[in-house]
Amino acid sequence: NRPMVLIAGPCVLEDLDTACRIAETLQEQCGRLGIPLIFKGSYDKANRTSVNAYRGPGLEEGLRILAQVKERFGLPVLSDVHEVSQIDSAEQVLDVIQIPAFLCRQTDLLVRAGRSGKVVNVKKGQFQAPWDMKHVVGKLASTGNEQIVLTERGASFGYNNLVVDMRSLLIMRQLGYPVVFDATHAVQLPGGNDGSSGGQRDYVGALSRAAVATGIDGLFWEVYEDPDCARCDGPNSLYLRDLPRLLAPLLEIDALVKRL
Amino acid sequence: NRPMVLIAGPCVLEDLDTACRIAETLQEQCGRLGIPLIFKGSYDKANRTSVNAYRGPGLEEGLRILAQVKERFGLPVLSDVHEVSQIDSAEQVLDVIQIPAFLCRQTDLLVRAGRSGKVVNVKKGQFQAPWDMKHVVGKLASTGNEQIVLTERGASFGYNNLVVDMRSLLIMRQLGYPVVFDATHAVQLPGGNDGSSGGQRDYVGALSRAAVATGIDGLFWEVYEDPDCARCDGPNSLYLRDLPRLLAPLLEIDALVKRL
Amino acid sequence: NRPMVLIAGPCVLEDLDTACRIAETLQEQCGRLGIPLIFKGSYDKANRTSVNAYRGPGLEEGLRILAQVKERFGLPVLSDVHEVSQIDSAEQVLDVIQIPAFLCRQTDLLVRAGRSGKVVNVKKGQFQAPWDMKHVVGKLASTGNEQIVLTERGASFGYNNLVVDMRSLLIMRQLGYPVVFDATHAVQLPGGNDGSSGGQRDYVGALSRAAVATGIDGLFWEVYEDPDCARCDGPNSLYLRDLPRLLAPLLEIDALVKRL
Amino acid sequence: NRPMVLIAGPCVLEDLDTACRIAETLQEQCGRLGIPLIFKGSYDKANRTSVNAYRGPGLEEGLRILAQVKERFGLPVLSDVHEVSQIDSAEQVLDVIQIPAFLCRQTDLLVRAGRSGKVVNVKKGQFQAPWDMKHVVGKLASTGNEQIVLTERGASFGYNNLVVDMRSLLIMRQLGYPVVFDATHAVQLPGGNDGSSGGQRDYVGALSRAAVATGIDGLFWEVYEDPDCARCDGPNSLYLRDLPRLLAPLLEIDALVKRL
Repeated sequence: NRPMVLIAGPCVLEDLDTACRIAETLQEQCGRLGIPLIFKGSYDKANRTSVNAYRGPGLEEGLRILAQVKERFGLPVLSDVHEVSQIDSAEQVLDVIQIPAFLCRQTDLLVRAGRSGKVVNVKKGQFQAPWDMKHVVGKLASTGNEQIVLTERGASFGYNNLVVDMRSLLIMRQLGYPVVFDATHAVQLPGGNDGSSGGQRDYVGALSRAAVATGIDGLFWEVYEDPDCARCDGPNSLYLRDLPRLLAPLLEIDALVKRL
Repeated sequence: NRPMVLIAGPCVLEDLDTACRIAETLQEQCGRLGIPLIFKGSYDKANRTSVNAYRGPGLEEGLRILAQVKERFGLPVLSDVHEVSQIDSAEQVLDVIQIPAFLCRQTDLLVRAGRSGKVVNVKKGQFQAPWDMKHVVGKLASTGNEQIVLTERGASFGYNNLVVDMRSLLIMRQLGYPVVFDATHAVQLPGGNDGSSGGQRDYVGALSRAAVATGIDGLFWEVYEDPDCARCDGPNSLYLRDLPRLLAPLLEIDALVKRL
Repeated sequence: NRPMVLIAGPCVLEDLDTACRIAETLQEQCGRLGIPLIFKGSYDKANRTSVNAYRGPGLEEGLRILAQVKERFGLPVLSDVHEVSQIDSAEQVLDVIQIPAFLCRQTDLLVRAGRSGKVVNVKKGQFQAPWDMKHVVGKLASTGNEQIVLTERGASFGYNNLVVDMRSLLIMRQLGYPVVFDATHAVQLPGGNDGSSGGQRDYVGALSRAAVATGIDGLFWEVYEDPDCARCDGPNSLYLRDLPRLLAPLLEIDALVKRL
Repeated sequence: NRPMVLIAGPCVLEDLDTACRIAETLQEQCGRLGIPLIFKGSYDKANRTSVNAYRGPGLEEGLRILAQVKERFGLPVLSDVHEVSQIDSAEQVLDVIQIPAFLCRQTDLLVRAGRSGKVVNVKKGQFQAPWDMKHVVGKLASTGNEQIVLTERGASFGYNNLVVDMRSLLIMRQLGYPVVFDATHAVQLPGGNDGSSGGQRDYVGALSRAAVATGIDGLFWEVYEDPDCARCDGPNSLYLRDLPRLLAPLLEIDALVKRL
C-alpha cells in the first residue's frame, strides 16, 4: 500500500533536447507533489497504423537518449521491446522493460525480459481476460524474476474502441504484483480509416481518478509539450503543463484509498 | 455540484416489516453520514431469468408498502414501472419513477412517465451508447418534464457479462441531467444456464469509488439484511450492515471531486 | 428439415394500398420460387430512436390493414406487440405474435402471448446469450403453447454496432424450436447521434446466405418498394424488386444443407 | 472467382512421420474432391497460454519437416513467423509466410515478410477492425509484393470468447486480395484459468459453410489424426477422417456462390 508511482514521458522519443526538457519539467512537477517518477519513452513504435508513420529514433539512438535522461536527472527509465534480440541492448540502459499489449503472450520475449533481472511491465492485451494474466506472470516468474508489473490499457469493445473494465485492476492485483493504469492508451480510439489512431484526451483525468480510487500502484501517462503537434498518439496524450492540476486530486484519492 | 445522493433498498419488496426495517437502518446510516437517501424497492421483477422466480408483491401491495415507508420515515421512494397502465397508480405514491434498462427506448412508457410530473430515472440499456441517451431525454423532455435522471448499470460485453464504461458517466452528464451509477447491477452476471443471474458483490465498493471519483450525482445500491438468502439478485446485493464502511470513503472522494 | 420460410413485409405499415401492393408482389415472387411466405408489418414502432419519428398507424388501424392482407391474399400475418393489453386485439388477427428483442425477457408479455395459442416468435435481445433463450422458451411453454419460434437479429458489439454470432443459430436450434434469421435488423447500426438508426443493406444477401448455410428454418426480411424513402429502417431494408435475385441462391443452399 | 483453396494441417508440427501421414491423407482427400491444398504446420507456438505448454520442434527442425512434405508430396507449405530474423530461414522453404493475429500490426515483420517475395497470409488480429486491414496491406504492398492473403479468425467478444463477424469477409475482400476463413481458430475459446485454450469443434462445419456462402477464397482448418490427444489446440481441431464429409457441401456452396 505504498503511494502510487507516475510513469510518464512522450509516446515516442524525438530528440535529446526535447526528452530532457520533458524529463526536467516532469521531475519538477512530481518533486513538488512528492510522486515517485519513472521516465518513459519509446525508441520505436513498432505497430503504427500506417507504414508511413514516424516510428522513432530507433533502438540505438533511443537508448542513448534514455541513458542521458537517466544520468542527468537520476530518473529510472522505461521503454518497450518488440523482439528478443533488442533486449541485449535494452537491458544495459532500462530500469523497466515493457512488453507491449499485442505481444503480451509472446513466450520468448517474456522469458528473455524476465532473464534481464530488470523490472518487467507487461501491458495486458486488448484481447486478454485479466485472470489470464496469471499465465503471463507464470512465464516471467519461470525465470526467477519476480519484479513484475501488470498494466491495464483497455479492452477491445467492438471496432475502433476500447473500454476500461475497472474490475481488471482488482483481478490483476490479486495475482500479487503491482498494477498500473495506462490512462492515455485507454482513451485511444484504435485504427480508423485515416491511417492513425484517434483519442479522447478529455477523459484521462476522470478515468485516472476512477482507477486510482480502486486502489492501484501506478499511473502511466503519455505527455508532450504540445500533443496536438506530436508525431505519435497526440490525440490521447496530455499537455505537460496540465499535469499538476490533474495529479493533485489523484494524490488525495490515492492516500485516502490506501488508508482503507 | 451538490453532494451525492444514495438510492438504496431491496431489489424486490417482500413484506412491510422487512421494508421498514431496511428503511430504518438505511435512514440511520445515511443520517449519520449526512447523505440524502431515496428508498427503492421493486413491486414486480418483470424480467426475471426464469418463469418460476419470485417476482414481488405486485403493483398494489408494493405501492402500499412504499407508501408506508414514505409516511413512517419521511423518505422519498422510487420504484420501476413496466407498462404504461401501471403509472396511474405508481404516480400516486412514487417520488421517482424508474424506467428499467431493457425498456429505456419504449416511447410510450417514457412519455407517460414524463407526464406524471415526477422525477424520472432512466437506466441506460445494456445495448445503448451513452450519447444515444440524448434521444431518451428528448422523449421525456417532450412532455415538458425536465426532472430527468440517467443511470449507468453496465453495457453488454460478450455473453453473460457486463462492463462499466466509466466514460459513459461523463458523456451522459454532458446532456445536462444528474447521473447515477447503479453499482449493484453493474456487477451482475446476467442470465446463465442455471436460471438466475449471478453477481460479484466484492467489486461494488471499488467500482463505486471509481464512479464517484469521476464526479456523479448519485449511487444506486441494492441491499438486504441477508443477501445470500434474498429472493432476487442476492449475489450482487450488499449486506446492509456493510454500508457505513463502504460509504465513508465515497463521501470523501465525492467532496474532493466536487471541489475540482 | 423442412424448406425455409420467408417472413417479409415493410418495417412499419403505412396504408392499406401500399401493404397490399407489397403483399401481392411478395406472394408472386415467393409463389414462383416455392417459398412459404408470412407477411409481416408493424402497426407501431414503439422504440424509435427519436420521439418525433413516424411510429405507424397504431394498433387498430394496423390490425385492420393486416386483416385485409390476410383475407385478400390468404397469407398468414405477423406483427409485434409491446404491452400485454395489445394482445387482446392482436390475437384476433395475427397468425404469429412477435416479441421484440428489447422485450424478450418481459415475463407477462411472453406468458400472455403464449396464452393466445398463436405461434409466438421471440427476437433474441441484443444483450442476451443464445443459451439463455431456454428461459424465454420456458416462460412461453409454461402456458402449454409450444408453437415457439426464436429469431436472431444480432448482438451488441461495442456501441452503435451489432454482430451476428452464427453459432447462436445452432445453439438456439438445439432448444428444439424453429430458428429464424432476421437479416435486415442484423445489419442495422443502432442509434447514432442524428436521431435514427443506420444500416448496411449491402450485407443482407451475404449474411442471409451464411445463416441459411448453417441450417435454419426461416428468414426475416424487411422490404419496401423504395426503402430509401421509407419512414422507418430504410437504410437496412431491401428493395422489393431485388428479392428474386437474392432468394434464388438461398433456396439452393437451403436444399443442399437440409440434405446433410 | 476461382474455386476455394484448403489450407490444412496440424496446429503444431510434431515429427516427420506424423506430418507425412497427415499430408498424404489430406492430399488424397483433396485430390478426390478437386480442392487445391496448401499444407500448414507451425514449428513454434510462440504464444501458448502457459509457459509449460509444448511449443513445437523449433525453426530448424520444423522447416526440415515442411521441406520434406513439400518434396515428397509436391504440396505448397505454409507456416507462421514471429520475429524478423526467422524469415531468413523460413523463406528458403515456405511458399506462404503467415503473420499471426497478435502480430498483424508489427511493421518490421510485415515488411520483411513482404520482401521475401513469397505469398504472405496475415491473420486479422482479434482486436482489429476489418477496414483497418487496409493499413496492413499497405505495409506489405510498400515492398512491391502484392501476393497478399487476409484471414479472418474471429474478433474479441467479451472475455475468453471470439465472435466471427461475417461482414469482415466482405469488407476485407473489397481491399482486393484473397480472403481466407480460419474456422478452427474462430471456434477457439481463448485462455481460461486452466492454462490452455478451449474450443468448439462442433461448430466448425456450420461456420465454414456460412463463410463459404458469403464467397471466400479459402478455408483454413487445423486437423489431427486424433485431436483429443493433440499437443496444441486439440479442442478446436478437426478429426482428419471427418474432412471428406465436411468438405463436400462446402464445394457445392462454393460453386453455387461463385456463379452469382
